[in-house]
Amino acid sequence: MQLHTASWPEVEAYLENSKGIIIPIGSTEQHGPNGLLGTDAICPEVMAREAGEAGGLMVGPTFNVGVAQHHLGFAGSMTLRPSTMIAAINDWIDSLHRHGFTRIYFLNGHGGNIATIQAAFAESYASWSLDADRCPYRLKLTNWWELSGVMDVCKSIFPVADGSHATASEISVTYYAYPDAVKTVEMSPKVAPVGSFTDAADYRKRFADGRIGSDPSGATAEKGEKIVAAAREALVREASAFFKR
Amino acid sequence: MQLHTASWPEVEAYLENSKGIIIPIGSTEQHGPNGLLGTDAICPEVMAREAGEAGGLMVGPTFNVGVAQHHLGFAGSMTLRPSTMIAAINDWIDSLHRHGFTRIYFLNGHGGNIATIQAAFAESYASWSLDADRCPYRLKLTNWWELSGVMDVCKSIFPVADGSHATASEISVTYYAYPDAVKTVEMSPKVAPVGSFTDAADYRKRFADGRIGSDPSGATAEKGEKIVAAAREALVREASAFFKR
Amino acid sequence: MQLHTASWPEVEAYLENSKGIIIPIGSTEQHGPNGLLGTDAICPEVMAREAGEAGGLMVGPTFNVGVAQHHLGFAGSMTLRPSTMIAAINDWIDSLHRHGFTRIYFLNGHGGNIATIQAAFAESYASWSLDADRCPYRLKLTNWWELSGVMDVCKSIFPVADGSHATASEISVTYYAYPDAVKTVEMSPKVAPVGSFTDAADYRKRFADGRIGSDPSGATAEKGEKIVAAAREALVREASAFFKR
Amino acid sequence: MQLHTASWPEVEAYLENSKGIIIPIGSTEQHGPNGLLGTDAICPEVMAREAGEAGGLMVGPTFNVGVAQHHLGFAGSMTLRPSTMIAAINDWIDSLHRHGFTRIYFLNGHGGNIATIQAAFAESYASWSLDADRCPYRLKLTNWWELSGVMDVCKSIFPVADGSHATASEISVTYYAYPDAVKTVEMSPKVAPVGSFTDAADYRKRFADGRIGSDPSGATAEKGEKIVAAAREALVREASAFFKR
Amino acid sequence: MQLHTASWPEVEAYLENSKGIIIPIGSTEQHGPNGLLGTDAICPEVMAREAGEAGGLMVGPTFNVGVAQHHLGFAGSMTLRPSTMIAAINDWIDSLHRHGFTRIYFLNGHGGNIATIQAAFAESYASWSLDADRCPYRLKLTNWWELSGVMDVCKSIFPVADGSHATASEISVTYYAYPDAVKTVEMSPKVAPVGSFTDAADYRKRFADGRIGSDPSGATAEKGEKIVAAAREALVREASAFFKR
Amino acid sequence: MQLHTASWPEVEAYLENSKGIIIPIGSTEQHGPNGLLGTDAICPEVMAREAGEAGGLMVGPTFNVGVAQHHLGFAGSMTLRPSTMIAAINDWIDSLHRHGFTRIYFLNGHGGNIATIQAAFAESYASWSLDADRCPYRLKLTNWWELSGVMDVCKSIFPVADGSHATASEISVTYYAYPDAVKTVEMSPKVAPVGSFTDAADYRKRFADGRIGSDPSGATAEKGEKIVAAAREALVREASAFFKR
Repeated sequence: MQLHTASWPEVEAYLENSKGIIIPIGSTEQHGPNGLLGTDAICPEVMAREAGEAGGLMVGPTFNVGVAQHHLGFAGSMTLRPSTMIAAINDWIDSLHRHGFTRIYFLNGHGGNIATIQAAFAESYASWSLDADRCPYRLKLTNWWELSGVMDVCKSIFPVADGSHATASEISVTYYAYPDAVKTVEMSPKVAPVGSFTDAADYRKRFADGRIGSDPSGATAEKGEKIVAAAREALVREASAFFKR
Repeated sequence: MQLHTASWPEVEAYLENSKGIIIPIGSTEQHGPNGLLGTDAICPEVMAREAGEAGGLMVGPTFNVGVAQHHLGFAGSMTLRPSTMIAAINDWIDSLHRHGFTRIYFLNGHGGNIATIQAAFAESYASWSLDADRCPYRLKLTNWWELSGVMDVCKSIFPVADGSHATASEISVTYYAYPDAVKTVEMSPKVAPVGSFTDAADYRKRFADGRIGSDPSGATAEKGEKIVAAAREALVREASAFFKR
Repeated sequence: MQLHTASWPEVEAYLENSKGIIIPIGSTEQHGPNGLLGTDAICPEVMAREAGEAGGLMVGPTFNVGVAQHHLGFAGSMTLRPSTMIAAINDWIDSLHRHGFTRIYFLNGHGGNIATIQAAFAESYASWSLDADRCPYRLKLTNWWELSGVMDVCKSIFPVADGSHATASEISVTYYAYPDAVKTVEMSPKVAPVGSFTDAADYRKRFADGRIGSDPSGATAEKGEKIVAAAREALVREASAFFKR
Repeated sequence: MQLHTASWPEVEAYLENSKGIIIPIGSTEQHGPNGLLGTDAICPEVMAREAGEAGGLMVGPTFNVGVAQHHLGFAGSMTLRPSTMIAAINDWIDSLHRHGFTRIYFLNGHGGNIATIQAAFAESYASWSLDADRCPYRLKLTNWWELSGVMDVCKSIFPVADGSHATASEISVTYYAYPDAVKTVEMSPKVAPVGSFTDAADYRKRFADGRIGSDPSGATAEKGEKIVAAAREALVREASAFFKR
Repeated sequence: MQLHTASWPEVEAYLENSKGIIIPIGSTEQHGPNGLLGTDAICPEVMAREAGEAGGLMVGPTFNVGVAQHHLGFAGSMTLRPSTMIAAINDWIDSLHRHGFTRIYFLNGHGGNIATIQAAFAESYASWSLDADRCPYRLKLTNWWELSGVMDVCKSIFPVADGSHATASEISVTYYAYPDAVKTVEMSPKVAPVGSFTDAADYRKRFADGRIGSDPSGATAEKGEKIVAAAREALVREASAFFKR
Repeated sequence: MQLHTASWPEVEAYLENSKGIIIPIGSTEQHGPNGLLGTDAICPEVMAREAGEAGGLMVGPTFNVGVAQHHLGFAGSMTLRPSTMIAAINDWIDSLHRHGFTRIYFLNGHGGNIATIQAAFAESYASWSLDADRCPYRLKLTNWWELSGVMDVCKSIFPVADGSHATASEISVTYYAYPDAVKTVEMSPKVAPVGSFTDAADYRKRFADGRIGSDPSGATAEKGEKIVAAAREALVREASAFFKR
C-alpha cells in the first residue's frame, strides 16, 4: 500500500494489523552522462512500491533530496545540509509515530545519506534516552544494494565495472522505472576512475563526467527489472521480519 | 523536462536557454474518506509535469511533506515543523541557484504551506538584504487553484460544495493521476461542515471525517483531466512569463 | 490594562476573569518621506492601548521589530530573520500560556509579518499536535486594517491613493499618536508607483522614496484619531468575543 | 532623535554626522507588589529618550522582553530563551550595521540580561573573527545603574533598602515615566529578603512577593525624575564618547 | 574520583552518597609568549583533580574549548560560537541529570566563558520554568580565582603585574601541571598593556603578544603548586557545601 | 607537539612547515564493569600524543564527549545530541582553518561517533560547495582500530572475545594510560552477548553490564602498551602522508 494513494481510513485499517512502514530515501544528484538525476530516489522508490504491493506493506512518501554537496559541481544536483536533513527526518519520524507506526524502515538509495540518516536516528533516540524513557519505536536503515541477494544479481549482470557511483545497476533500475528516459551517450573513458573526494570542486576535478568506477553504457531496462525483482523479494522478507520484531 | 529523469548534461544544456524551474510543493495529509493522502503533492506534480512537457519547462523534484500539523489527528498525515521547512526550502533554493537557476517557481498544492513558503522566501532574501547585496534570483509562489482560468473550470464542474479541504476538484485531479486509486465511500453528511481550526485535536473535533465544506463524492478522473488541462495551459504561460522577467 | 504598567498581582487578578491578551505586533521600517519608521508598531500599539482601556482588556508589550528585509535599502529599517521571529513569538506564547493566558490575540500592523506570524502559530500548534495532546490555547492574528469597519473609515477619509505602503491612513494614525513627529515633505510623484518586490535592492530600485501606491501628503492627526476610534471600537468587540470563545 | 518617530531621510541625514545609536534593552517581568512589569524596559527607554533629545543622539526601538525565566512564577512575566535572544540581538545588530551604524550602545535595565547580551556580542564578533576579517562595528553594554553618578543619586535618595530587585530607585523611575501607574501597596516584610535563586519555582519560594532586598514603598515620581536627570546627563556624555571612539 | 577513569558501577556507587559533580571548563587560546594554549582548561582541570582526590568528589570531563573568538588572531586559538556552547553545555547537564546528579559545579578557567555559561544555565532553567515545573537540579559557576583565599595567594606571590590575561599565576599553575612545557621567553614590554577589546583583529592590534597587563616571566611550577594547593582546599570546602545544599 | 601545551609562537612556527593537525575525538560512556568511562577519548588521546611526539605532528585538544545516547542507561555516560556535535565540530574546524591548518585528521575512538563526524564533515564541505567555492581544507576521519596493523596486534593479543564494546584491547590501552585506574572485577557471563540496539533502555535490557561481545578480564597495561606502539607507528605514517597530500 502506498501512503500517498491511500485514504486515512485505509491507513487506520492497516495500522490495526501492522505497525510498520517503509520510507524510500534518496537524493537528487548527477549520475553521469547517461544517468538520471533522480536515480538514488527512484531506485528505492520503485523497489519499495513493488514490495509494498507484493507484501501488503505500507510505503510512505519518498524523501527525495538528501546530502549530495559533493555533486553540486554538476548541473541539477541538489543537497540538504546534514543538520537540515536531521531535522526533517525527525519530523517525519515524529509524524509517523504519532499515528502508531513503531517500525520505520528507511530504504536508502544514496551512500552519501548514510551518515546523516544514522545521525538522525541517534538524534531521535537521544530525546528518549536523555529523558530516561523507553523509545516506543525502532528505526532501521537499509541500503537497497544490501538487501540479501541483490548484489549477487548485480554482479552476475555486470561482472565488471558496475562501479560505485552512477553504477550500471542503478541506472538499469531507473531505465526500468522510466523507460522513456533511457539515454545513449558515448562515454570516455569507458570505465570511470575511482577515488575519494571532499567538496564539490574536488569531486568535479577528479571525476570529469561524474561517474566513479563505473561503465553504465550497458544499462538496460530489462537488467533493471531483474535487479528490482530481487530487491522486491528480499525487501518483502526483510521488512516484514523487521515489522514483527 | 523533469529534473529527476534528466541527466546533468541535459540540465546544463537547458540552462543555456532558460534560468527557470518549477518546483511542485505539497503535503502528505488526510483528504477525507475518499481522498488520497498525497493529494496536495500529486496535484501540483501532475500539473507541473504536463506543463513541463507542453512548454519545455524544467520541473524539479516534488517537495512532498509540508506543514500539516492540523491534520495529524487523522492516520497517515505528516508534517514538517515550519522552522524545518524554512531550512529545507532554503537548501533547495541555494542548490538550484548554485547552478544558475535564477527564477524558481513554486507551484503549491496546500493552503497550509503558504505562510511557511513565504517566510522561507523572506529568509532567503534577508541574507542578501542584510549583506546589502542584490539577490541574484527571484522566487515565486503560486497555488495551482490560482492559475488563471483554473478556478472557473472547477466551479463549472462543481458549482456547489467543491469545498475548501478535500475538495471535489483536487480529488478529481488525483483520480486522473492515479486512476487505480479511485475510492468509493459513502459520506455523511454529504457536504462537510465549514469553519476554522487550530491544532490537530481541534481540527478532528470539528471535522469528523477530515473534509471541510466539500462533497467530493462526484469526483472523477475525467473531471480531473479537465482541471489539469486548464492548469497546464495557464502554467506554461505564467511560468514562461516569470522565467523571462 | 497594559501589562507593562501593571503589577503581577494586578495581572493575577485579571486572570481570574479573563484568559485573553492582545499583543500589538509590528515592524521598524521606512514609511516613505514623511512616515515614521515605527509606523507599523505604533498603529497596533495605540489601537490596542485605547481598546484595552475602553474594554478592560489586557494588552501585552509591543513586538516592535518584525520581518522587513525588503525595506533594508532605506536607512533605519530593521528586520528579524523569519526563523528568529518564529522562535521569539513562540517564547512569548509559552510565557503567556505559563500564566494561564489561553487566548492570545496578535494585532498586527505590518503585511510583511503575516506569513511569519502564521508560521509561528503552526510551529506552536505542531508541538501539541505531534504529541497527540490538545493544545490548551488559541492564537489569533488580525491585521488592524481588517478590523470591521476600519477600512471603510480609511476609504471615506482617503478615497484615492491611500496606497499599500506608507499609506495615508497609517501615517495619520502615527501623527495622532505622536503629534510632535508630524513631517511635511514634498513628494514626487505625488502618488507612488505600485508593484511587487523581492529583496531590499529590488524594492529600492522600484520604489525610489519607499512608498507604494500612496499619497500620504494629506495625513493628519485628526484623521488618524478617527481611524483609531473605529479600530478601538471594533477591537474591543472582536477581541472580547475571541477571549470568550 | 527617536528612530521610531524619525523618517528614513532623517536617519540618513543623522548618519552623515554620527554612526552611533542607543538601544534600550530590558525585560517584562514582575517587580513586586507595587512595581510595573515593564520596569526594566521602561527605565532605559525613558533615560535613552531624554538623553537622545538632550544630546542629539539616535535612540532605537526598545528590546522589551529579555531573559527572565526566574520570574515566571509571577503572573505576567515573560522570557526569551537565551538562544532566541542571541539570535534576535544579532538580527538587530546586522540590520543597524547594514545602514552604517558602527557604534551600537545597549543601555540595559535588567541584570538577568547581562550574560546573554554579552554572549550575543561574542556571537556577533565571532563571525568576523573566524573569517579573519576586522569587525567594522563596536558593541557596548551599559547597565543604567552603572552610568557615572547615577548610583550616588540612588543611594542619596534611598540610603537603605534600595535592594537588588524591584528596587525603590527603578520603581521611582517608572512612576516618573508613568505617573498614572503609581501603586500604593502594603508590603510585608517591609524590606524583602536577599539571596540567590535558580529557576522560577525556586525564586517564588524564596521571594514570596517578588522583591529582593528592597523596600520600594517610598518610591515616587519626583525621586525618579532625579535619577533620570542624572542618567540623562551621564548617558549623553558616555554614549557621545563611545560614538566618537 | 575522576569520571573519566571510573567505571559505571563506581559512579553508581558514588551517587548513593553524593549527587554532586565538578566540571572543569576552560578554553583553548593563546596565553602570550610563554603561556600554554590550554592554560584555561588546565588550571581548573588540575585544581578539580586534586580536590576530587582530596575530598572524594566526582570530577567530570574537562570542557576544553570555550568562547575565545577574540584570541583567534593568534595561532592555535579555538572558539565555539556562544550558541554552540549553550547547546553543548545543556547536553552535558541533561546527561548528568539523567543519572541523578543534581548539583553540577562548573569550575571555570576563562573569563570569556562566564557570560555564555550563565546564559547556558538560564537556557536550562528556562525549560523548567516555562513548563511550570520545579527544576530538580542546581547549577553553579565558580571561576577558580574566586575560590576563597586563592587570590590572596596569587597576590602574595605576584604582588605586581599578575595581570588579567596570561597572568603570572595561571601560567605558574600550568607549569606545575606540565613541568616539561615550561617556556623561557624574553618579553617586551615586560608588563603588557591593559585595555578592552572587541573582535580578534582588534585584540591583536591592541595586545601585540597576546598578554593583557601581565608580566608572566616569573612564573614557576613551584609557585603554581602553591596556588593549586590553596585552590584545592577551597574547592573541597565550597563544592562539598554546594553538594549538600 | 601538543597544542594544549604549546604557545602561540610555537604553533605559528609549526605552521610554517606543516598545515596538519590531529584531533583525538572520543566519548564519555560506560565501558562495562572494569572499563573506564573515558575509554573512547583516552585511546585516541594517548595514541595521538605519542605519535605527535614521535613524528613531530601537532595534536589538538581532545573532543571528549560524543554521541553516546545508547549508553545513558549506565551511570556516568554522557552524550551530545548529533546536531550539537555537528555544530561543535564545525566551530573547531573553522577555528583551525582560520590559522592555516588545511589538513585536519580526526582520530576517533568511538563507533557511535562515526556517522555524526561524517555528517559534520558534509556540513562543513556543503558551505563551500553551495557557494561554488573550492574548500581550502581537507578533513579525515580514522578510527584508531583501522590504523594499519593495529587490528592484527589486537587479534594476536586477544584472539577470542576481544568484542565490540568494552573490548579487551581498548581497556588495555586505558590501563596503559592510567595504570592507577586498573580495575579487577568478576564478570558473568565471561563473554558478553552480542547484538544490535536502539536507545538507552533497549541497550541496557540487552547488555546487562554494558559490554558487547567482549571478555575484557585479561586486559593489562602491558598489552595496551603494545597496541599503542603499533598505533603510534601507523599514525605517524598515515597522518604524515595525509598532511602532505
